[in-house]
Amino acid sequence: MADAAIAEYQLSTEGKLKHFVVEVLEKSGVARDRAKVVAEVLVAADLRGVESHGVARLEPYYVGRIRAGHLNPKPNYQIVRETETTVLYDADNGLGHPVGKLAMAKVIEKAAKHGSAFGAVRNSNHFGIAGYYAMLALDHDMVGMASTNSVKYGAPTFGKDVMLGTNPLAFAVPAGKEPSFVFDFATTTVPKGKLEVYKRKNRPLETGWAIDELGESTTDPDAALRGALLPLGGFGVSHGGHKGYGLGLLVDILCGVLSGGAFGPSLPVATENKAGAISHWFGAFRVDAFRDVAEFKADMDKELRYFKDSHAAPGQSRVYVAGEIEHENTLRHRESGVPVHVKVWDGLQKLASELSIPFDLGR
Amino acid sequence: MADAAIAEYQLSTEGKLKHFVVEVLEKSGVARDRAKVVAEVLVAADLRGVESHGVARLEPYYVGRIRAGHLNPKPNYQIVRETETTVLYDADNGLGHPVGKLAMAKVIEKAAKHGSAFGAVRNSNHFGIAGYYAMLALDHDMVGMASTNSVKYGAPTFGKDVMLGTNPLAFAVPAGKEPSFVFDFATTTVPKGKLEVYKRKNRPLETGWAIDELGESTTDPDAALRGALLPLGGFGVSHGGHKGYGLGLLVDILCGVLSGGAFGPSLPVATENKAGAISHWFGAFRVDAFRDVAEFKADMDKELRYFKDSHAAPGQSRVYVAGEIEHENTLRHRESGVPVHVKVWDGLQKLASELSIPFDLGR
Repeated sequence: MADAAIAEYQLSTEGKLKHFVVEVLEKSGVARDRAKVVAEVLVAADLRGVESHGVARLEPYYVGRIRAGHLNPKPNYQIVRETETTVLYDADNGLGHPVGKLAMAKVIEKAAKHGSAFGAVRNSNHFGIAGYYAMLALDHDMVGMASTNSVKYGAPTFGKDVMLGTNPLAFAVPAGKEPSFVFDFATTTVPKGKLEVYKRKNRPLETGWAIDELGESTTDPDAALRGALLPLGGFGVSHGGHKGYGLGLLVDILCGVLSGGAFGPSLPVATENKAGAISHWFGAFRVDAFRDVAEFKADMDKELRYFKDSHAAPGQSRVYVAGEIEHENTLRHRESGVPVHVKVWDGLQKLASELSIPFDLGR
Repeated sequence: MADAAIAEYQLSTEGKLKHFVVEVLEKSGVARDRAKVVAEVLVAADLRGVESHGVARLEPYYVGRIRAGHLNPKPNYQIVRETETTVLYDADNGLGHPVGKLAMAKVIEKAAKHGSAFGAVRNSNHFGIAGYYAMLALDHDMVGMASTNSVKYGAPTFGKDVMLGTNPLAFAVPAGKEPSFVFDFATTTVPKGKLEVYKRKNRPLETGWAIDELGESTTDPDAALRGALLPLGGFGVSHGGHKGYGLGLLVDILCGVLSGGAFGPSLPVATENKAGAISHWFGAFRVDAFRDVAEFKADMDKELRYFKDSHAAPGQSRVYVAGEIEHENTLRHRESGVPVHVKVWDGLQKLASELSIPFDLGR
């Protein structure tokens, strides 16, 4: 991505992007301290190379929805149930990032006191990359977990109805000298955006990514966009599609049903414009509840290097571990600029002009 | 499976199978109360239709390993670290089932007091189906989690070395009138046993199940058996193989690294005959920490029925939810007998004769 920066990407900086997001959200009615959290999460995605979840979403997912009245810019985030090691928030249809960070911070605080904790948030909206919240546990020498349900794009195994979100799960585990293990994945095989990219490039999809409206496997991007995404493991059960479906449904249960928020039947589909009705789920536990932290981290390094140093398959240069590429992206983008796709760049410029705020994102 | 019972299966009963397992293990030096737990877990697998993890494993996984001196029949299971909400056991190279149940019971006890808890076990052996332990949470109106690493069968994405077990994860969530959601899955696309079945039947494998010794995708069972299993999501990354690999590595970390047991480099491969060196991981939290239990269960029923009542894809009769088929199997096998494959039956008969115990498994 950074290599293509000259042609299709403009380069910005972490600081400028964050500042811009804060300005835009404040102009849209969001309190500055909350806008800062959104900026932090969105720019973390761009830094990590997950550009689909970064500033590209500022207008369509957040500002546009505030302006359309679908998302509450001044929510009253509140705790509605709490025990020693659990907490449930209601997000009052506000932005997901600030309440997500609040909930994960509370989970970490409780885990610090008692060893482990879980949290959930209901009536929320898209909260960016799940990995961001799981990673908050790392500095506390804890294992972190985060998840969210989403608007519906996908079908269950053997089904044809659009019933499940991309429902990501993220886990973060601290290491020593090696970058932390950060595993953040959607439980569908591919995201909806991938179908759109293939349609634009007029390329056939791979089998196992999607079905058409009738529920048949398809490689036609148009048919797939009218149909549904398939769970991780693909079509049917022969490649484990039921496992991806199980994970997706698990996430909908842990987020939506557990929190008393929207789930399954009441979750919106992607094309509906209404209140987000999204729920999140978080967890954390202390490493030192199980082992001395230094020993654990030394063994994590050993484990991660075991995989990184293993023999690559033909045609591959090496074996990676989860979070490694994103960590390298972050270092590189901090050093030499954060790439922003020209279409996104132009969109942000337009947004700046509409909101009468300065547009100065160039590196 | 039950339909084929007449030809390839003998029918037994839950009670007779359990009694037999207890007798066999007691003769092998295992204390009766522990043998009873093993019987419970193994027969639960047969009842659920997971025959690969049932009494079929009594000799090769447990008794055979005790007789060969690889597994300690009289272990000193002990707690080596503990906080309000976490517990770590050392299994002293004993059977995994009794210590797994002990650890999950302790996790449930701690979660009952404090809201949530986690546990781990090191220096253990194969503990049967992970779902059994997750399901122990159900009667307490908790969400249960269980996992284990295993001897190595699989390769990481882009790699060719045999480095990962089938590393299952299980989650159990209570429902109301509907059977509980019980999701228990290996993080490889298929188990090793499937390659052996295909070899026996002289059938080509599906692409994405395995690689050969060189790390190339293969559909040849012989080549695959000399090679490695692929993670859920298959070969490379285009179908999400990196997600299955991430899950497999996560399990190895949560079980092996966290517990201070064996992991990655020190885990045995399937063909080695030595101490199990397996570790397990457990978790639980109270539903009522988040919502009133009755409301939660009513919503779980709504969620599960939403999927079960959705439209099936062409050629499919209906959509299932995780644990549903296994629940139906259990009811049917309790009613009309537990099928035991004739080869397994003969093996048990041989075992009975070797140990001079009565063989009376017929229904």
